[in-house]
Amino acid sequence: MRILLSNDDGYFAPGIEALAQALADVADITVVAPERDRSGASNSLTLDRPLSLRRAANGFYYVNGTPTDCVHLAVTGMLDELPDMVVSGINHGANMGDDTVYSGTVAAATEGYLLGIPSIAVSLVSRSDKHFETAAQVARRLVLHYAERPLKQPVLLNVNVPDLPVEQVGDLRITRLGKRHKAEPVVRAKTPRGETVYWVGAAGTAQDAGEGTDFHAVAAGHVSVTPLQLDLTHNGQLPLIRDWLA
Amino acid sequence: MRILLSNDDGYFAPGIEALAQALADVADITVVAPERDRSGASNSLTLDRPLSLRRAANGFYYVNGTPTDCVHLAVTGMLDELPDMVVSGINHGANMGDDTVYSGTVAAATEGYLLGIPSIAVSLVSRSDKHFETAAQVARRLVLHYAERPLKQPVLLNVNVPDLPVEQVGDLRITRLGKRHKAEPVVRAKTPRGETVYWVGAAGTAQDAGEGTDFHAVAAGHVSVTPLQLDLTHNGQLPLIRDWLA
Amino acid sequence: MRILLSNDDGYFAPGIEALAQALADVADITVVAPERDRSGASNSLTLDRPLSLRRAANGFYYVNGTPTDCVHLAVTGMLDELPDMVVSGINHGANMGDDTVYSGTVAAATEGYLLGIPSIAVSLVSRSDKHFETAAQVARRLVLHYAERPLKQPVLLNVNVPDLPVEQVGDLRITRLGKRHKAEPVVRAKTPRGETVYWVGAAGTAQDAGEGTDFHAVAAGHVSVTPLQLDLTHNGQLPLIRDWLA
Amino acid sequence: MRILLSNDDGYFAPGIEALAQALADVADITVVAPERDRSGASNSLTLDRPLSLRRAANGFYYVNGTPTDCVHLAVTGMLDELPDMVVSGINHGANMGDDTVYSGTVAAATEGYLLGIPSIAVSLVSRSDKHFETAAQVARRLVLHYAERPLKQPVLLNVNVPDLPVEQVGDLRITRLGKRHKAEPVVRAKTPRGETVYWVGAAGTAQDAGEGTDFHAVAAGHVSVTPLQLDLTHNGQLPLIRDWLA
Repeated sequence: MRILLSNDDGYFAPGIEALAQALADVADITVVAPERDRSGASNSLTLDRPLSLRRAANGFYYVNGTPTDCVHLAVTGMLDELPDMVVSGINHGANMGDDTVYSGTVAAATEGYLLGIPSIAVSLVSRSDKHFETAAQVARRLVLHYAERPLKQPVLLNVNVPDLPVEQVGDLRITRLGKRHKAEPVVRAKTPRGETVYWVGAAGTAQDAGEGTDFHAVAAGHVSVTPLQLDLTHNGQLPLIRDWLA
Repeated sequence: MRILLSNDDGYFAPGIEALAQALADVADITVVAPERDRSGASNSLTLDRPLSLRRAANGFYYVNGTPTDCVHLAVTGMLDELPDMVVSGINHGANMGDDTVYSGTVAAATEGYLLGIPSIAVSLVSRSDKHFETAAQVARRLVLHYAERPLKQPVLLNVNVPDLPVEQVGDLRITRLGKRHKAEPVVRAKTPRGETVYWVGAAGTAQDAGEGTDFHAVAAGHVSVTPLQLDLTHNGQLPLIRDWLA
Repeated sequence: MRILLSNDDGYFAPGIEALAQALADVADITVVAPERDRSGASNSLTLDRPLSLRRAANGFYYVNGTPTDCVHLAVTGMLDELPDMVVSGINHGANMGDDTVYSGTVAAATEGYLLGIPSIAVSLVSRSDKHFETAAQVARRLVLHYAERPLKQPVLLNVNVPDLPVEQVGDLRITRLGKRHKAEPVVRAKTPRGETVYWVGAAGTAQDAGEGTDFHAVAAGHVSVTPLQLDLTHNGQLPLIRDWLA
Repeated sequence: MRILLSNDDGYFAPGIEALAQALADVADITVVAPERDRSGASNSLTLDRPLSLRRAANGFYYVNGTPTDCVHLAVTGMLDELPDMVVSGINHGANMGDDTVYSGTVAAATEGYLLGIPSIAVSLVSRSDKHFETAAQVARRLVLHYAERPLKQPVLLNVNVPDLPVEQVGDLRITRLGKRHKAEPVVRAKTPRGETVYWVGAAGTAQDAGEGTDFHAVAAGHVSVTPLQLDLTHNGQLPLIRDWLA
């Protein structure tokens, strides 16, 4: 089995090292990840300059581009054979609800999925990065499960793992994405040269975190697994808009 | 009526000027757009540095960030009142099918929608930018229609306009997103210093361009209008994945 | 006479517009400047990606690179004939003493000089950009003087103009560079996500601002003109180091 | 003895690792280097955003900025005491003649010097990075020599080491900077989207490489040591320009 790993925190991040270690005896691993932290990169693609691919001392490859660039370049220009799976992460912090739209971790898996490869994004719901080994074990378990029971249709799974020791983590729960409240407003600051600048504010708190959501599962100590799709068409609104513009 | 305009081609692009002109007598316009071409930016947010907001000679504001940053900053930190609508574009080139995932034009409208504002992304299906005025008239017509008949539920419309003179353009068609074939592989090049670099290749050709899709409508000379939503949950796959992991 | 203009504040900056206007009837002007503010760029060259050259509505060209890139690209790849002169500026703020080492304005002129073209960097000693027209008149006067009385040896002039109405400005003074005190320390700040970041602090105040320096001339209301060279060899120290390492 | 190390190739580059190892038993070493390759950065300072300082697994610190930013931040905001010396490198490739104007390696040492600290830039004259250990031994030797026989006046040394095994390298030679021919013209290329882009061309070949220059010393297998200064005033041209503008 061949697995391509990527992330958005950079090739040197502890999350991707934990992932590579946990999968080393299960599959033939190639790591292709951004050369620097690209959190918040979403699905951005670099179109205005070419990408470089370099190899670090530990054998990981890094690219001067986005998570999407990394997977795109690895699959369409570097690897001799298609990987059997793309695993992205382990992200340092949650990717739940609307976060998925901005997340570079989810984007790396998305690019694998768009290229026809079963893909998994794995995030640790923590800002203190304690239990990467828990998330790594979850990833390992999903990969092994997929190897034994491959799915016929394409699959893109968004996995969020609570920051707990392995033995304290609950079951896997299949969830839908919840919703967050609007983000906090931008935060003004002054530069030493007297100019006003604006920091993007914190993400909103969970708004729809009811039963069945990723927020709900993780809050209860479970691992949340959400199957994603990328067709943004609002099918439910098609008749309304048709009527409105008639 | 107050309208916030943005784009991904940069504040100086002819598409956003055409849009601002066409809407000038309809609404109170504020333009907040990226300081440089950010095509392919998707929903990326700038989290590792603060943003600057500056005003060009023509009154347009520009931000050293992404399309998403522009709308986010304008709405949460700059404008005194919420705009009644966000219009993004006119993009130089189509944003149909899977393009919507990578598009900065769609992302600017998406950010408006996530902040609770009715939002429209407008793209001209052309690489030769001939008929921006056609797309500008379509945008104007949709804005006026919305002003007369506001919708109660939040709305995010992705509009693609054929590159034809106004009088040759067909009706509005309410569509679903089509699908593209996989993108072309990366293209290798050599730098003058002998290093190998890789350009992201061209987008794939349309794969699902059947009746009802955006590709189909535009190919027939119609304006395509697709309502979008941002919940990536693959609802249809929930039972399958639940079963698979049981 | 053909003159290439560039700067480090960006092609849209009022300083370069004032310069282009003041020289329009004197020479055939081509403007090639950075697409965004690159203050502090020094002589940096972009080696890891190629450069794009685009034309703005007003006929100015802009490059997604540094001031040095702009002059380099214009001279070695774009212009059919070598320009007779490179003029860089008008910078918004002084470039005196040690500033010259960091300045992108000086760097653009430096690149012209290294390519064998007489070059002038022009800066307005002000943070409130009131009297660009004064600096533009100084530039015009120097260019006309050079056209009448060309110098045989290569020349790189660093010109700083006090922010005064034309009629209040004193004579030209030929000066040496002064020296500043060390820069202010970096300024700590917190991001909304709780991370510590550091702003580069303000430039130091003048330390050697005695008679004969650029600081002294400008403080007295004169225009400072300093001829520069680029050989950093510390000739005076050669015997000492030879002795020391013997 | 406390030594600050930096470079322009990035904190992960083999050259800075070789340097850190060679100096580990001689001094208390702190490494603060760019998070990515910033070759060609010259003395550029980051003024439009704040800098982050992070610690890699091996204890090296990295900054999302230029070589100049790294030394500036380390000295004015991070280190409790002034370092006794700044050593920059080992650069992968020569920094001789006019290269010194563009070099980020020289710039990191320059910033140390401007902040009042004796500073050395070390480069390996090779594109195949074979003998970093030779350059590291040269650096070690210079540092030990300085520790024994400190100089009273500020010193900035630019050191270029031939790419030879330690036992084959000749003596230290105190040199002046040579001169290069003009750089090669930019190289045109086409993007996959059909746009013309331009790569900065290769550096020129040596023009003034006569006896006494850095080029000459290294070509003969010697280590070149050039003391630098940063006052760009063209003292020899002052009378000429005074006369010309009188």
